[in-house]
Amino acid sequence: MSKVNESAASHGVIHLRPVDNVAIATATLAAGTTLWLSGREICVNRSIPAGHKFAVASIPSGLPVIKYGCPIGNATAAVFCGDHVHTHNLTDHHVVSNDLTTVSPPSPPTKLSRTFDGFHRADGRVGTRNYVALISTVNCSASVCHKVAERFDQQRMKRWPNVDGVFAATHTTGCAMQFNGIKQKMLGRVLAGYSRHPNVGACLILGLGCEQTTAGYLTEHQGIVSLYAPSGEKLTRDDGIPIMTMQSEGGTRATIAKAETFVEQLLDRANMFTRAPADASALVVGTECGGSDGYSGLTANPAVGVVSDRVVACGGTSVISETTELYGAEHLLVARSRTPEVAQKLLDRIQWWKDYVAMYDGQIDNNPSAGNKAGGLTTITEKSLGAVSKSGSTTLEEVYEYATPITSKGLVVMDSPGFDPASVTGKVAGGANLVLFTTGRGSCFGCKPTPVIKIATNSAMYESMRDDMDLNAGTLLEGRDLQDVGEEFFDFALEVASGRKTCSEELGLGDHEFVPWTVGPTL
Amino acid sequence: MSKVNESAASHGVIHLRPVDNVAIATATLAAGTTLWLSGREICVNRSIPAGHKFAVASIPSGLPVIKYGCPIGNATAAVFCGDHVHTHNLTDHHVVSNDLTTVSPPSPPTKLSRTFDGFHRADGRVGTRNYVALISTVNCSASVCHKVAERFDQQRMKRWPNVDGVFAATHTTGCAMQFNGIKQKMLGRVLAGYSRHPNVGACLILGLGCEQTTAGYLTEHQGIVSLYAPSGEKLTRDDGIPIMTMQSEGGTRATIAKAETFVEQLLDRANMFTRAPADASALVVGTECGGSDGYSGLTANPAVGVVSDRVVACGGTSVISETTELYGAEHLLVARSRTPEVAQKLLDRIQWWKDYVAMYDGQIDNNPSAGNKAGGLTTITEKSLGAVSKSGSTTLEEVYEYATPITSKGLVVMDSPGFDPASVTGKVAGGANLVLFTTGRGSCFGCKPTPVIKIATNSAMYESMRDDMDLNAGTLLEGRDLQDVGEEFFDFALEVASGRKTCSEELGLGDHEFVPWTVGPTL
Ligand SMILES: [Ca+2]
Ligand SMILES: [Ca+2]
Ligand SMILES: [Ca+2]
Ligand SMILES: [Ca+2]
Ligand SMILES: [Ca+2]
Repeated sequence: MSKVNESAASHGVIHLRPVDNVAIATATLAAGTTLWLSGREICVNRSIPAGHKFAVASIPSGLPVIKYGCPIGNATAAVFCGDHVHTHNLTDHHVVSNDLTTVSPPSPPTKLSRTFDGFHRADGRVGTRNYVALISTVNCSASVCHKVAERFDQQRMKRWPNVDGVFAATHTTGCAMQFNGIKQKMLGRVLAGYSRHPNVGACLILGLGCEQTTAGYLTEHQGIVSLYAPSGEKLTRDDGIPIMTMQSEGGTRATIAKAETFVEQLLDRANMFTRAPADASALVVGTECGGSDGYSGLTANPAVGVVSDRVVACGGTSVISETTELYGAEHLLVARSRTPEVAQKLLDRIQWWKDYVAMYDGQIDNNPSAGNKAGGLTTITEKSLGAVSKSGSTTLEEVYEYATPITSKGLVVMDSPGFDPASVTGKVAGGANLVLFTTGRGSCFGCKPTPVIKIATNSAMYESMRDDMDLNAGTLLEGRDLQDVGEEFFDFALEVASGRKTCSEELGLGDHEFVPWTVGPTL
Repeated sequence: MSKVNESAASHGVIHLRPVDNVAIATATLAAGTTLWLSGREICVNRSIPAGHKFAVASIPSGLPVIKYGCPIGNATAAVFCGDHVHTHNLTDHHVVSNDLTTVSPPSPPTKLSRTFDGFHRADGRVGTRNYVALISTVNCSASVCHKVAERFDQQRMKRWPNVDGVFAATHTTGCAMQFNGIKQKMLGRVLAGYSRHPNVGACLILGLGCEQTTAGYLTEHQGIVSLYAPSGEKLTRDDGIPIMTMQSEGGTRATIAKAETFVEQLLDRANMFTRAPADASALVVGTECGGSDGYSGLTANPAVGVVSDRVVACGGTSVISETTELYGAEHLLVARSRTPEVAQKLLDRIQWWKDYVAMYDGQIDNNPSAGNKAGGLTTITEKSLGAVSKSGSTTLEEVYEYATPITSKGLVVMDSPGFDPASVTGKVAGGANLVLFTTGRGSCFGCKPTPVIKIATNSAMYESMRDDMDLNAGTLLEGRDLQDVGEEFFDFALEVASGRKTCSEELGLGDHEFVPWTVGPTL
């Protein structure tokens, strides 16, 4: 689909591919509406909500419902032409294929050369923002981190014009877990990834003191170099991170006071960085969808796919995650993998998820959520076919575990849940310096230190949540060309990378969306 | 132990019971120190850190190490008199007994009659505080909740002198989970418990709109009565809770503005409550330990046990939780259970935990934490024998699942992890209107809407973290009488229930420690 069917769109209907036996209403269709679609007359026999599907052919019970040219599940009853197709008559029976003979990476895209203005760091990475981070090792030091950050308001920050702000990355765990078990390792990776993030000009790690995720743990297992006794001189070291604990400082009040002094020094240090031209190959763009609706896979996700292809053509990195939402469309990424080994890594992560949810007698395809369903998405395969279009069309180069450092160029997968804050936190920990976030129902997500560009899937929601939406992909339903829209979005992304503020940055969001995903019991 | 051995304490050593084959150093003992203890000379053959144990008799490899008069594990090597006893030569092999023939509830304590000044609610419960709560159904509305709460600072709150403040209860989940599965049920119970808490004079529930834990879910599954279109008139209903979503309001900015107006109305409503004398039977006291050390079980926990006994004698409720830390001492609670059925419920929860951690190849006795071990605790049985002393000596009346409403009087158990914020959040959700929190290493925990009294286990930490510690149980090491200290702590608890601020309230803590415990995958 490089262009949405203009005449159908003008009817308030999209019929994506000729082989599809369902079409999508783009506005509520009244019962009894008669449409002329692909050469035949169709009478809609009940009201079809916007974003929902109706049959454009008879589908016998047990046979596939086709959308995007792919099966999205089977009819559970005889479906007649004009019937609403949703959870009452459609179910998914997706089976993951382990056949690696389909692996056949596409030819590389034509090279592009673009730049943005970023903060060049000592390790060669480039930041799109320049924050000072207060990172909490455990929930027990969360309030102190927030109280310190709150002391650096807009007025006071004028002293450090090159710094975007001071933020607190606090969380709900850090103790009562198996020492160096899966839960602690995952958390450690996230904390280390944030502390060394290219968008972080300087960082202070703050703990209580008796937690399991101590400074010592981070030093030993995550290579954090600590400066236990920071002075002005020591803080000029590029790789040193001061670490404090409340127990050694004498409690809440003393810690806040001392941390405030440290943060002033860190701000002086971060303020020495200024923006300079950088090649777009330094971009690490995370893609995400949240609050999907029936349009996500038709408009915003394919448009993000175009941006992903541009980023890869520039030599940059595009990161898709949300493994639970790749399930159902994993065969498309398997076929595009660089090697069978890369494809196998993806299939291994999907198998891990199947085993994991089975421990709780759950199913990986419990998704789509109630909100997704209200928006017209019926099955996980349907949602995933739409979700995976965020990855564009380039070769899958690598598969990363959650929150591990991303070093490959090109398109990569990071394993994560679909849950927005946990998924984005993992990609940012891996090094994402820009996030493209599509939403149909209307998410208000923001994430410090990485700017999040929110893209509406439909014009109605774009208008009703104008303060929160950066871009509108709903224009694709009105006949705009996908490549044109994608190119505009890419230009906007480069502007944001260079410092243009996103809606969520203007609104000051991102202080409570740091959500490290961890697996394993809280003891 | 009603009195710590005075002469031993003056040596810097505690030998708790005559049968114990270890003693505890209360200050670092230098290598070569010679002590006269229970009629024999003991030479400490290496330096013993404060809080750590040393042998006062030879213990052959494989035989029990005895403390509190109970086995705390077995020696893994031959231990000689004067040896340091810790992880290098002591390990735990605790086996849970399912023998219910030991159930034999103690006779009830002599009735006490005490009062405090509290906020009498329509359902008969009594608050010790009077907050307005902003409750987030999902992480996606967390920032908005915090931004609304921040608008009601101390200056502005002078308009509502009977209200303690506006706080935001936000969390990291609420979506991407099995619908009405264990994870959502647990979260739903916590949110409902906070919204109806006796310390909450009025409440606003705020969501994004497309999450799984919607207003509709809370209404259907948790009995939350919503007022979808709140007006001044409707807000006078006692049982109505206004619920808003960001998607229906048009995004972040519009939601904050409208919520601010609602909160003003809710403050007017909450401000109509004033303190009036209440019987102490309305107290629901949660007990907790966090950042335990070698003194927790010697000083602060037994002192809290005395308070628990007083609360029960008044007809009130005492809630112990931290199931992972009851493990190892569950036989003491089994023996004190009201009925075999109550004892079985406790054993069932312990079995659940064993099965749960086994799914991750973990062990329930992974605890004590690194911090605990540094403080001198070696085994979970040792820690648990000390932890369970918070429950005092009365009959165990009931066992509750996490975050369920507590309706019994007397001593009860609520299932929870030991992790402080998750454990306290569950007890508060169950209705705890006061929390007694013991700490050896020095926790700075606070929790809105319930005041938390922090009790130091030792005078050194009490002095070094003076701003955070409300009470000092370290005086028990200097020869004070346990019943006297417990009585003083109970008097202090009644003052706090009547409005006296705790240290964590003075410091403004409790906005980031709302941590609903949930089990099951994030999808
Ligand atoms: Ca999604
Ligand atoms: Ca998502
Ligand atoms: Ca937080
Ligand atoms: Ca504890
Ligand atoms: Ca605890």
